[in-house]
Amino acid sequence: MSSPLATAGLFALAVSTATAFVATPAGAGAVRARNGFSTTSRDVTSPAAISKRGVATRRAMSMGDDYDYDLIIVGCGVGGHGAALHARSCGLKTAVFSGKDVGGTCVNRGCVPSKALLAAAGRVREMQDDHHLDGMGIKVSGVEYDRAGVAAHAKNLASKVKGGLEGSLKTLGVEVIDATGELAGANTIKAVETGKTFTAKDIILAPGSLPFVPPGVQADGKTVFTSDEALDLAFVPEYAAIVGSGYIGLEFSDVYTALGAEVTFIEALPTLMPTFDREIARLAERLLIKSRPIDYRLGVFASEVIPGVPGEKPVTIKMIDAETKEHVETIEVDACMVATGRVPNTKTLGLENMGIETNRGFVQVDGKMQVLNKEGGDVVPNLYCIGDANGKLMLAHAASAHGVSAVENIMGRENEVDHLAIPAACFTHPEIAMVGLTEEQAKEKAAEEGYELGKASGSFKANSKALAEGAGDGIAKVLFNKETEEIVGVHIIGLHAADLIQECSNAVAAGTTVRELSMMVHTHPTLCEVLDEAFKGAMGRSAH
Amino acid sequence: MSSPLATAGLFALAVSTATAFVATPAGAGAVRARNGFSTTSRDVTSPAAISKRGVATRRAMSMGDDYDYDLIIVGCGVGGHGAALHARSCGLKTAVFSGKDVGGTCVNRGCVPSKALLAAAGRVREMQDDHHLDGMGIKVSGVEYDRAGVAAHAKNLASKVKGGLEGSLKTLGVEVIDATGELAGANTIKAVETGKTFTAKDIILAPGSLPFVPPGVQADGKTVFTSDEALDLAFVPEYAAIVGSGYIGLEFSDVYTALGAEVTFIEALPTLMPTFDREIARLAERLLIKSRPIDYRLGVFASEVIPGVPGEKPVTIKMIDAETKEHVETIEVDACMVATGRVPNTKTLGLENMGIETNRGFVQVDGKMQVLNKEGGDVVPNLYCIGDANGKLMLAHAASAHGVSAVENIMGRENEVDHLAIPAACFTHPEIAMVGLTEEQAKEKAAEEGYELGKASGSFKANSKALAEGAGDGIAKVLFNKETEEIVGVHIIGLHAADLIQECSNAVAAGTTVRELSMMVHTHPTLCEVLDEAFKGAMGRSAH
Repeated sequence: MSSPLATAGLFALAVSTATAFVATPAGAGAVRARNGFSTTSRDVTSPAAISKRGVATRRAMSMGDDYDYDLIIVGCGVGGHGAALHARSCGLKTAVFSGKDVGGTCVNRGCVPSKALLAAAGRVREMQDDHHLDGMGIKVSGVEYDRAGVAAHAKNLASKVKGGLEGSLKTLGVEVIDATGELAGANTIKAVETGKTFTAKDIILAPGSLPFVPPGVQADGKTVFTSDEALDLAFVPEYAAIVGSGYIGLEFSDVYTALGAEVTFIEALPTLMPTFDREIARLAERLLIKSRPIDYRLGVFASEVIPGVPGEKPVTIKMIDAETKEHVETIEVDACMVATGRVPNTKTLGLENMGIETNRGFVQVDGKMQVLNKEGGDVVPNLYCIGDANGKLMLAHAASAHGVSAVENIMGRENEVDHLAIPAACFTHPEIAMVGLTEEQAKEKAAEEGYELGKASGSFKANSKALAEGAGDGIAKVLFNKETEEIVGVHIIGLHAADLIQECSNAVAAGTTVRELSMMVHTHPTLCEVLDEAFKGAMGRSAH
Repeated sequence: MSSPLATAGLFALAVSTATAFVATPAGAGAVRARNGFSTTSRDVTSPAAISKRGVATRRAMSMGDDYDYDLIIVGCGVGGHGAALHARSCGLKTAVFSGKDVGGTCVNRGCVPSKALLAAAGRVREMQDDHHLDGMGIKVSGVEYDRAGVAAHAKNLASKVKGGLEGSLKTLGVEVIDATGELAGANTIKAVETGKTFTAKDIILAPGSLPFVPPGVQADGKTVFTSDEALDLAFVPEYAAIVGSGYIGLEFSDVYTALGAEVTFIEALPTLMPTFDREIARLAERLLIKSRPIDYRLGVFASEVIPGVPGEKPVTIKMIDAETKEHVETIEVDACMVATGRVPNTKTLGLENMGIETNRGFVQVDGKMQVLNKEGGDVVPNLYCIGDANGKLMLAHAASAHGVSAVENIMGRENEVDHLAIPAACFTHPEIAMVGLTEEQAKEKAAEEGYELGKASGSFKANSKALAEGAGDGIAKVLFNKETEEIVGVHIIGLHAADLIQECSNAVAAGTTVRELSMMVHTHPTLCEVLDEAFKGAMGRSAH
């Protein structure tokens, strides 16, 4: 499961969790004094100076300091872990406060176990599709799944991947502190459980996010639950409601319907999959919704969700019109999954101890991941915030990229993450993947910046490999600036889209033009040729 | 099925088909006079001059000529088709001699239908793998395939793709001449069937290749056959011998064993998969050979292969030692597939009419795909040869790239194909893919050019998505120049390798360094992260 690319839509429901600004200059000053290290001597607001200093100087400096660590990272999800590994490769003495949750949401109750459920569900769906298999000359009888077995696959995978992360931290000499970290002042983190404080020259906050549960929803974790519990697959409901039709909801609708459930989406916005490119969303609706036992309600809130008892009492969901707030319908289902986005896990970070003000809970950062004391405010020296908690792009690999970037900046090598080059994927069958802007966003940008937007598509229907696999559904759409020929956005729905997007995001990162891409040779017959067709099409050429 | 990346090994057996050099200056001169177009006025040996002339001038010139076409292409496989499409997008009046074989080998009896067989076989293999499915909580009680149904899937696919090619030619206004084209002199092609001649300012030869059948092998097309007939899957032998362990043989061993056959490879060279990177070949041997009912003989020729009668009389294969030529063994099998490489289809091209000498049948070309009158000889004006027939890289997409490049040169935009940036794939389960040099070749090159070769690997075993799919076998290996950090070669064996290689070949084409790649963000959790791990590893960093 991946978080939404554009969070605005899904977070429309989120209550403001902004922490009041509390100035604590005395406390912060005391800590600085204790460490004998003034912010003046290491002015992070002057990156050019740091950059000149270079790596060797930076390391040499660290020898004379009396901090416990060069770097403390609070949180050990994919972001914190990525930051820690990169810090070690840069020679920084590094500690991570794991909060007893190495791997964080993604590994333990997010992207990783959901891939296991999707892998099993995808196979069950395909093996039960007689028409599809018959087209290849294959007959299968007696396809069954064992719920506990599917759930165990997800659990085993999460535990294996978590073990891998723990192993890498150990091997690389990252100190893992099994406690919850809280900012106790500049350069200082307190272990909440013991009260012990640790100091570091630099601190990276990577606390991640939590599922958002709208008011009125009584989540019991059994019949009314978020992705946290859904991934346990404690039971497969016959009829499930999914509140929210973003990535998470969509992936679970794929799993549930493959395993025999019927699904009703409850979406607050007037369209399904509100954060997706509209053309892709329409095709996704045809491929992933209409062809399956799924219906939906649009423009309504689940204003009241009352848990049930499996096999005894249904879950009751009252819906109100999103605009008029009038009651429109009440439905009874076996289970209700709440997938209305995620909120930053920043309430217990101790931000108030440093006088840091958030925006709806999101820690404000500049392009270098340096924490700002408030939106549009000043840089807080030596403090960084990465991943979901800064709200830039709530994806595991974005968090990891943030972590690498923050460490680069700490090392004096100026670095900014280009979020427009970060791909995102939804691992339904078929997958959906994207990088850069949606067509709607791109049109707006083109109008603003006064360039002509180009658009070209490739089709899975015309792709030999897709047809060989009996998977001719889908398209790839390339949006580009007609003057500069730079890629503005790419959207793919189709077999293995999540892997196919990579050459596009690399192109955005490297500034490779669509003309250059159109001359790059793609293996025949592969799914990549769908993109080849689009690239060539963008240049007025035909491909195959 | 894809042709071997390096043809040297597999073609060790090929008999020399070199055509004697026949000078025909008078004939060529006559044609030139007839066309009123001297080579001096359009000196293709002076590309800079053409380049300056530009597209508009080039098109304007074409108006005053009295050729039937701007461009004639002989052969309509993937190469000829790609050239024709690109020529039309450049505004050239174009005709293609199809030889009644639109789609050529790849589409009709090669890469395309083999993907259909592999798709079916892969599913049968997976569904019969109880351990694999059980690990995901899935049980299947009966899996059956219908040979005719599998064969029909391949046939339908080929016919659909061929229809697509024909449609695109028609739509774009390419004239398809349903005859076999033969060079009748400069700028002139004769339709062999009718004797009618057609003229064009430029000619591209794209005749493709034919399966090579070694002397002593009596191919009856039924029990002893090449890929041409194997793709019909007229029967599934219980015990098949495959002569040659390159891409084609390997893909068929995957199909046959999934469908219940036992296989014996007969390889002339001392190692299996002789054209592959050695480390990849060793892993492929473990994953694709040793875990399946496959054995092999190395260093032997199938000196005599006598057809049998299905169900009545076995095929007899006599083997001799490749060095001593002494008889070593005779085996009896149900069928023998001959996959000993391919030879250029150039014997009936009429090359002798232009005094063009080949090298073992391969038409010699320069970097711009211009035909040379002999190896190391002079450019034959206005004549190009692309694809398998020039022997540069016998892959369908290479042929198409050659075609695009030839047309670019015809248009006066100087272009050379970088063969080191062309990916190749073997579509076994799991797939194998590569770009650039093998480690052995790279070591040699590094020693020659005096640079230090870097090597880094990523593993499917540590990849969340691969493990979710129950497919943790495989590695990705990145070879790079430690000084320039440029990619020298990448080799992948593992799930979807054929799609994963694309970002690497684009990197080679664009000169993207491994350092730059190591900072490009890869979606989590995807298979692409295996490469991310290798890229980061190359820079001394850990990934996940």
